[in-house]
Amino acid sequence: MNDTFLKACRGEDVDFTPVWLMRQAGPFLSSYKKVLAKYDFLTVCRTPELASKITIQPVDDLGVDAAIIYSDITTTVVPMGMDLSYVPGKGPSYANPIRTKEDAVRLIVPEDVEDGLGFVFDAQKICARELANKVPLIGFAGSPFTVSAYMIEGGASHSHVNTRQMIFGDTTTFNILMDKVTRQTINYLRKQAEAGAQALMLFDSNAGMLGPQDYRVFNLPYVKRILADLKDIEVPLIYFGLGQHETLDDIAECGADVIGIDSGKDLGNAVDELGLNVSVQGNIEPYVFFQSKNYIEERVAYTLESGRKARGHIFNLGHGVPAHAPEGHVKALVDAVHEQSIQSTSK
Amino acid sequence: MNDTFLKACRGEDVDFTPVWLMRQAGPFLSSYKKVLAKYDFLTVCRTPELASKITIQPVDDLGVDAAIIYSDITTTVVPMGMDLSYVPGKGPSYANPIRTKEDAVRLIVPEDVEDGLGFVFDAQKICARELANKVPLIGFAGSPFTVSAYMIEGGASHSHVNTRQMIFGDTTTFNILMDKVTRQTINYLRKQAEAGAQALMLFDSNAGMLGPQDYRVFNLPYVKRILADLKDIEVPLIYFGLGQHETLDDIAECGADVIGIDSGKDLGNAVDELGLNVSVQGNIEPYVFFQSKNYIEERVAYTLESGRKARGHIFNLGHGVPAHAPEGHVKALVDAVHEQSIQSTSK
Repeated sequence: MNDTFLKACRGEDVDFTPVWLMRQAGPFLSSYKKVLAKYDFLTVCRTPELASKITIQPVDDLGVDAAIIYSDITTTVVPMGMDLSYVPGKGPSYANPIRTKEDAVRLIVPEDVEDGLGFVFDAQKICARELANKVPLIGFAGSPFTVSAYMIEGGASHSHVNTRQMIFGDTTTFNILMDKVTRQTINYLRKQAEAGAQALMLFDSNAGMLGPQDYRVFNLPYVKRILADLKDIEVPLIYFGLGQHETLDDIAECGADVIGIDSGKDLGNAVDELGLNVSVQGNIEPYVFFQSKNYIEERVAYTLESGRKARGHIFNLGHGVPAHAPEGHVKALVDAVHEQSIQSTSK
Repeated sequence: MNDTFLKACRGEDVDFTPVWLMRQAGPFLSSYKKVLAKYDFLTVCRTPELASKITIQPVDDLGVDAAIIYSDITTTVVPMGMDLSYVPGKGPSYANPIRTKEDAVRLIVPEDVEDGLGFVFDAQKICARELANKVPLIGFAGSPFTVSAYMIEGGASHSHVNTRQMIFGDTTTFNILMDKVTRQTINYLRKQAEAGAQALMLFDSNAGMLGPQDYRVFNLPYVKRILADLKDIEVPLIYFGLGQHETLDDIAECGADVIGIDSGKDLGNAVDELGLNVSVQGNIEPYVFFQSKNYIEERVAYTLESGRKARGHIFNLGHGVPAHAPEGHVKALVDAVHEQSIQSTSK
């Protein structure tokens, strides 16, 4: 097993810098497109044989050092009472958004997290078995803040008007919602580790919605609660707060082993602010794939150099692989990370 | 004339902290709603009597210390050959987005900027006359980067897929577009100062699209070119790069007298990074309006305290006033800024 990824998470010595890519199982990949041409998104998520196949494909096609379970952050709260459907071109949507205190009070936290989510754990069991001699499997969930924003808006949103109004105008309801989603998320992540996930990641894609002062009050405490609860599990924990560039000193103390850094932050500065008790994951601009391979190699060199002083560096993008990225260029980036980091270690 | 705003822009002593609010002429204001109930958005922009009326209303209704011309950043490039229409619920859209080199080459930079934009300058002449004994008038334009992104996408966008692909995949076309929009913007801002604008602001709402390294290459040089060209005009220049939190040391040198700071950045940190050669404008969270007046007053105190060490501080939001903000709470914020900053100066 290539366990370079796990070693870097823990800050142990590695022979090369491990790399995986957010949305590495995505439409830029021809093998992915073949599967999604036959089945719709939620069907793939809910069919363990398909989800596991799609999870493993990038490991074989790209040579990445970790797989991440193919799933979606919006499915986690369906058993709580959310009515999820997939609208092509719009993404996952809830028919019953949470807007009032009654809506939030009505949500349940199932005693058995397998009720309604068994397909995720089944897919992970298949992946863990099939990846046994290859690379580690990452399990994940959305952060309570990010998932709650989806629940309040009823789906993806740019302006997040309803979420922002609830946070400041009806804080009580917001806290009820956040507490319940937090509890469900803890159960969900714990069960993923039991099913075979060897690292757990919390995606906080909406973290940038709030400035530093409000992020520390309305978001970060819930992240800390989850990570504190999971501390006894022997797998690395990763937190990725997209758009939070000002609070890394606090984020460094959130309880994660690895902090994800998006492309909006200079990786070298991030390492300085985070300190040496955590590893970093990130952060190259995802659209460099549209440039030449030479250009990509130069950007890889810059990012490797920026990450070198970290306790550990897992190479990744600052966001997901763009849908139309040329597959050959994505493969070129993965190869460049491996080749350049081996060279520089041997110097 | 209350010229506190202009003094703060220049870093001169003031008796109280001046305040104005982005989108202070917006749907939260009852007087605004009355006008927009009768005329559509682009009609108001293009009718000097209506645009000037809407510009001045917040000065009377809220007691703010500056007016900003009611206009839209998308209108500036219509005379270049862009086909603009207003889609309710979607905002301004171009029917002919710029996607190819031919599209960019076809754009013209009119010799006389009044061709097709005279209504803006006419509205400003009315405002300057009617505001003569009240407060200064701010003129503005979108930054070349932000306006180009609108032109490439054909309107507002969250993902900016086409823009990002052009920046990295067809840099030549992007530079042709940016150069032309830059020249039009210089002409447009210069003429606004002639028409009576007493300060000029460059809105870079899409500045956060690129990380620090790419922002310095693909965006900031064009901002600098505009501000350098306008240096001979005797009005303060303001630059607001929404979502740029990592490059304030460079932004401080862009040629602006005032730097706008959004809510994602701690204002005290921003001042530390900007230094004392520029004033700051910002940056309270716009959704505090949904909290109680007491809470708003506490947040005002925090923001005033953070801005105190700056060369000059113009109080503002980090983004526009939310559409559903309670008007009385907006007024309460303006009053709190004035009352608290007078008190603290006299201490």
